[in-house]
Amino acid sequence: MRTSQYLLSTLKETPANAEVISHQYMLRAGLIRPVASGLYTWLPTGLKVLKKVENIVREEMDRAGAIEMLMPMVQPADLWEESGRWDDYGPELVRLKDRHNRSFVLGPTHEEVITKLISFELNSYKQLPLSMYQVQTKFRDEIRPRFGVMRGREFLMKDAYSFHLSQECLDTTYQNMHAAYCRIFDRLGLDYRPVIADTGSIGGDASHEFHVLAESGEDDIAFSSHSDYAANIEKAEALAPSGERANGEMGINKIATPDVHTIEDVCKFFDVSASKVAKTLLVVGECEEGETAPIIALVLRGDHDLNEIKAEKIAGVASPLAFASEEQITAAANCDAGSIGPVDLNTAVIVDRSAAHLSDFICGANETGFHFNGANFDRDIKDYTVADIRNVVAGDPSPCGNGTIEIKRGIEVGHIFQLGEKYAKAMGAAVLNDQGKNQTLTMGCYGIGVSRIVAAAIEQNNDENGIIWPEAIAPFKVVIIPMNMHKSHRVHETAEQLYSDLKAAGIEVMIDDRKERPGVMFKDMELIGIPHSIIVGERNLDNAEVEYKNRIAGDKSTLKIADVLDFITKI
Amino acid sequence: MRTSQYLLSTLKETPANAEVISHQYMLRAGLIRPVASGLYTWLPTGLKVLKKVENIVREEMDRAGAIEMLMPMVQPADLWEESGRWDDYGPELVRLKDRHNRSFVLGPTHEEVITKLISFELNSYKQLPLSMYQVQTKFRDEIRPRFGVMRGREFLMKDAYSFHLSQECLDTTYQNMHAAYCRIFDRLGLDYRPVIADTGSIGGDASHEFHVLAESGEDDIAFSSHSDYAANIEKAEALAPSGERANGEMGINKIATPDVHTIEDVCKFFDVSASKVAKTLLVVGECEEGETAPIIALVLRGDHDLNEIKAEKIAGVASPLAFASEEQITAAANCDAGSIGPVDLNTAVIVDRSAAHLSDFICGANETGFHFNGANFDRDIKDYTVADIRNVVAGDPSPCGNGTIEIKRGIEVGHIFQLGEKYAKAMGAAVLNDQGKNQTLTMGCYGIGVSRIVAAAIEQNNDENGIIWPEAIAPFKVVIIPMNMHKSHRVHETAEQLYSDLKAAGIEVMIDDRKERPGVMFKDMELIGIPHSIIVGERNLDNAEVEYKNRIAGDKSTLKIADVLDFITKI
Repeated sequence: MRTSQYLLSTLKETPANAEVISHQYMLRAGLIRPVASGLYTWLPTGLKVLKKVENIVREEMDRAGAIEMLMPMVQPADLWEESGRWDDYGPELVRLKDRHNRSFVLGPTHEEVITKLISFELNSYKQLPLSMYQVQTKFRDEIRPRFGVMRGREFLMKDAYSFHLSQECLDTTYQNMHAAYCRIFDRLGLDYRPVIADTGSIGGDASHEFHVLAESGEDDIAFSSHSDYAANIEKAEALAPSGERANGEMGINKIATPDVHTIEDVCKFFDVSASKVAKTLLVVGECEEGETAPIIALVLRGDHDLNEIKAEKIAGVASPLAFASEEQITAAANCDAGSIGPVDLNTAVIVDRSAAHLSDFICGANETGFHFNGANFDRDIKDYTVADIRNVVAGDPSPCGNGTIEIKRGIEVGHIFQLGEKYAKAMGAAVLNDQGKNQTLTMGCYGIGVSRIVAAAIEQNNDENGIIWPEAIAPFKVVIIPMNMHKSHRVHETAEQLYSDLKAAGIEVMIDDRKERPGVMFKDMELIGIPHSIIVGERNLDNAEVEYKNRIAGDKSTLKIADVLDFITKI
Repeated sequence: MRTSQYLLSTLKETPANAEVISHQYMLRAGLIRPVASGLYTWLPTGLKVLKKVENIVREEMDRAGAIEMLMPMVQPADLWEESGRWDDYGPELVRLKDRHNRSFVLGPTHEEVITKLISFELNSYKQLPLSMYQVQTKFRDEIRPRFGVMRGREFLMKDAYSFHLSQECLDTTYQNMHAAYCRIFDRLGLDYRPVIADTGSIGGDASHEFHVLAESGEDDIAFSSHSDYAANIEKAEALAPSGERANGEMGINKIATPDVHTIEDVCKFFDVSASKVAKTLLVVGECEEGETAPIIALVLRGDHDLNEIKAEKIAGVASPLAFASEEQITAAANCDAGSIGPVDLNTAVIVDRSAAHLSDFICGANETGFHFNGANFDRDIKDYTVADIRNVVAGDPSPCGNGTIEIKRGIEVGHIFQLGEKYAKAMGAAVLNDQGKNQTLTMGCYGIGVSRIVAAAIEQNNDENGIIWPEAIAPFKVVIIPMNMHKSHRVHETAEQLYSDLKAAGIEVMIDDRKERPGVMFKDMELIGIPHSIIVGERNLDNAEVEYKNRIAGDKSTLKIADVLDFITKI
């Protein structure tokens, strides 16, 4: 490709409103352009990267035995009514009407369409297991699209679905897909982790997210320092502290704590660390429609954060989790939120495992402006249950039994999930089993955010000059930068010869044949992040040499012109 | 691919509601499945064909120097307001609102998005000419989706756009694209014609459609018997008959013609051919808002059809063409529609070139139940203009000057078009020219219906047993059909060995390893239309042979097992 006949579209300035580095560089390097909030055009250079990611994903799906197909983006509403998601899915689901006033959605995912299809196409257990996938444009009407294609509204996704008659069969395909995902991210050249993920309302045990590790990630991932264990912090179990709880030695004491509202205030007032304080949060409990909701107290150590996903799974707690309103707090504890405590509280009390290990601790006294000191479980708080309701923190023992927890940030780029019978039951997807009886199918689903991977790769691989593409997804492998080619016949001739030699060898090569100063070309090509640069200049030509620069290592060397093709081919 | 691990999904019965052969076979061969009216899932076999078409299109676009990009399917309404098409485009344009109540459309085409993009990205004439393309999902809310993917609502399209500063430059790219389109359809192995097409309201001269010739086509194409001339019948010029008009010999005679309403009736009544009769149609003329529309009479020979596209381009005729209502007919001619004629008619009269050549002809007398016999122009009808307002018919002289017109039916699969400045002007797409002055861009656009090509290829290539794919777009090149493999170890072993040999050689091979009777397998593979079949049976194995069958030629032969790989590779 010649830059003079290409739409390079690099920008010198960082566009406003681009908060994260990948968004900034994708705009500056001419990879994408916004069309509207969360909607982007992929410029030629961006599309090249997107297609490379897509091809690696496709090759590994094929290798895993999944069969490619393509479903429509526009889906009839009746399928969503049948699955129940027409009502359950929030405003992220775009609904529209056709000219005949029939309702449709823009597909954010395709469980309904494929399950309905399979319910018609499969008749016999002999056709199972079956895995199908597509690489397709999806639409989710994000409330706040941001970070460019990282959280856009229209995006490219690979979604796969597998069908089975037994959990064992699903498990096998699930492991197979897990391995395929690892191959994909290995081939993409990304630092990633498969992490245990929450299964949400569907339940079941098996769900993994695949995260590209990057500081700017929106998710916290908990790792073991000494094993492969990794889990989304939503899901990572916080073990009970080891050993017995120390016996309380103090008596309980009510102390006036004026102007003490937060845990920080409490620590300052009592001159203790937050780990000696119990904080109490009131949440809404489950109830029948029309009844007054019960209130439930959640007790955590002052230095720990509530894990809402864990909390809402506890029997009796409403899901999704809802915190008590001011009126509900007053009714239940008769004090400000800052003075609630578990002593003599007239609600169910759920104590986090670590908080339950406290003795002689400080907590609210259920009277505005007062706290207890020297509180102890069993003596002062008799009726309570213990559960894991907090986020793990760095230094916690790993739930795998090996090492301690470390926390890193990740960008979710893949998610595999055992769906069980949820959709198959709703859409009537069943086949005759080997006993000749109709049996509902069991399903798995497997997603990869193809366009998001492009952004995640940049978040992980960049420097102050621009993008540093992993070799496998670089838009071009080599760029030839002729210096002042329009003034030097030798430079022109050599650069063109190298260009045609590399092209003839099937190497993706760009030649920067614009009439620009060398400095402008270097900056543009570093920004775009092409792995290998061949710089053709008058000086080196005296020795029949060109300069070679590696974008990753940053090092420069000289190459004999005659060796360039061989050198590049061998990289 | 093994059929046992594939979603073959062939159907024995022709599904109801599938009117054309391509739709029937696409359903029966397991290429597509309906999701809703005009919305289809591409099953694995169908998607393979679609991808092959897509890849040929992509390769030739790249070869033509067009640069691939990808625009969003969902487009903001403001771009369509800027171009004026928000109001002009009918209900085929699906409009929707996002969660913030902002208006969007599902893109039926992308002139607005690309023109706006280019208006930002290009600064200098040095970046021109530039051709960009995408292969992308489009949506058009057809009032009556039909014929499967031939006229679906969601479909895959290649759309390209070129940008220029001069008509000469546009002409060059247009010719280049025309040649690329010919290469595409050549490579696809289809019998097609580039035909001169109407340019609609945009005007300008240059527009070509590419039609795959097939009986079931919706368009009539006019060819010359002796040259390359081909035009959509909408556009093909009907020349004036050669020679002078014969002098009238009869006097004009008003004759009572009770119960004579149609041209057929007239011919019967007077015992003449329709070519001796003039028929008169009343249409609405242009007028200012609020004024009463003038009525215009169009006169054609009884055996000719009005060409509405030609008629509405005549000065004074309303566009789109509207026929006069009953009230308007009564007001203008004071008779039934069947008795209108050009004699003493108080409207403007436009006479088709061929009708104007009539003498001593029959026409309506503007009195219900009466016709004139022996009418003549200039003597009986003084005030009229002559124009080309009819469709050409087979046998007409070709407008190119060589040979006569033949008519065939075609399926439009491509359309190239010189847009001129229409969009560039509306969206402010201009660059500095070599004089340093801002100049509006001139554009071309170039579309190919990728999914429609799959259907068109089947319309053109099929027999009573199923599809006959052109080699370049067959879903598989070879199928191995083992007869009773589950009973014969020899058959099993030979079939599997051939399968792995062919696969290792990079050949797209399917093996039908289902436990089905040979007859079922043969029928399925003929239906799917795989070009080459290798049939492995006990009998031939005695001679170390297999049977080979060619789907196109239909002939069978035997091959030495040892020669199969070589034979298939060489085809």
